[in-house]
Amino acid sequence: MQKESNISRASNISRAFTWLEPGPVILVTTNNGKRNNVCTISWHMVMDFSPHIAITTGNWNQSFDTILHTRECVLCIPGLDLLDDVLYAGMHSGTKIDKFARLHLTALQGNFVKAPLIEECLACIECKLESHIETYGILIFKGLQLWENKGRKENRTAHAVGDGSFISDGHIITKYRKNMRTKIPDGCTRF
Amino acid sequence: MQKESNISRASNISRAFTWLEPGPVILVTTNNGKRNNVCTISWHMVMDFSPHIAITTGNWNQSFDTILHTRECVLCIPGLDLLDDVLYAGMHSGTKIDKFARLHLTALQGNFVKAPLIEECLACIECKLESHIETYGILIFKGLQLWENKGRKENRTAHAVGDGSFISDGHIITKYRKNMRTKIPDGCTRF
Repeated sequence: MQKESNISRASNISRAFTWLEPGPVILVTTNNGKRNNVCTISWHMVMDFSPHIAITTGNWNQSFDTILHTRECVLCIPGLDLLDDVLYAGMHSGTKIDKFARLHLTALQGNFVKAPLIEECLACIECKLESHIETYGILIFKGLQLWENKGRKENRTAHAVGDGSFISDGHIITKYRKNMRTKIPDGCTRF
Repeated sequence: MQKESNISRASNISRAFTWLEPGPVILVTTNNGKRNNVCTISWHMVMDFSPHIAITTGNWNQSFDTILHTRECVLCIPGLDLLDDVLYAGMHSGTKIDKFARLHLTALQGNFVKAPLIEECLACIECKLESHIETYGILIFKGLQLWENKGRKENRTAHAVGDGSFISDGHIITKYRKNMRTKIPDGCTRF
């Protein structure tokens, strides 16, 4: 019997930006029609609540070519427990290595794109490519479906400093929530 | 006698991206020729090591007009101890309020721009505007000068979730630094 997945579909996309705005290091999955691939990205930016999301990358990254060709990807937010995998995915090219197999990551099928969700991540956002700003290497995505895995023991994320060091999430401060209530869409409280 | 400032000029700009890549909420200062202003931004993205830095904002933000007119700003990284100020700067418009005075922030003159440094912040990056991608409300800056304040007791930053809650920095993980040594410019280790 197939094991039941711990990852579940959020009823709307409105909370997706709350996973990216704090600036965690993320995993980006693609599928080029032959196999899945995964790379690590830290240069990303929420652009609005719909959400539109920008990332910066370029042709040194195999996933970049796949994204331009397939016009889709999944942005996955790993917990701190996946930091070794995040580093491996960021340091190795998928041209010769099946990184999904090597890292024992569980690829699941989403609703809108062929790129896989990663079951072990805290959240996954299925995305379609809307635009490529070539001059600056910026890809602009529209998030279509949020998935969340509420069964993980480790719910802290990691923030890449960029020099190989990382900052883990510390404590959560919720005392300002009432101030923001009128400025954001309904239903997007994360904590 | 004027008190000596705790903020000092970094010898090169190469470490600037390490302050932004972890995704902290930041303060953006401007000077419109009449007075200083400060706003809060969480939608920002490192684009390369030089560094080029993108932010997303629009004409609901008074600082946006000033940046388009003066083509400069300072990106300031506040510590967790300034979180009340961060929230105030984000919730109030500078059209009627002198937020610098109201928040008792110390404005210091940088080297390249008229927009002020904030002495109480952990780091400040003087920036010139290079491009405005109107379709997406993206401003692209080049960082010119990094300033760092090593005299602060609180060195943790805050990460905005976007719903009014924040995540503080937790512990720092440096075990991966050797992996990144060949991929980044010299001299940009932060910890």
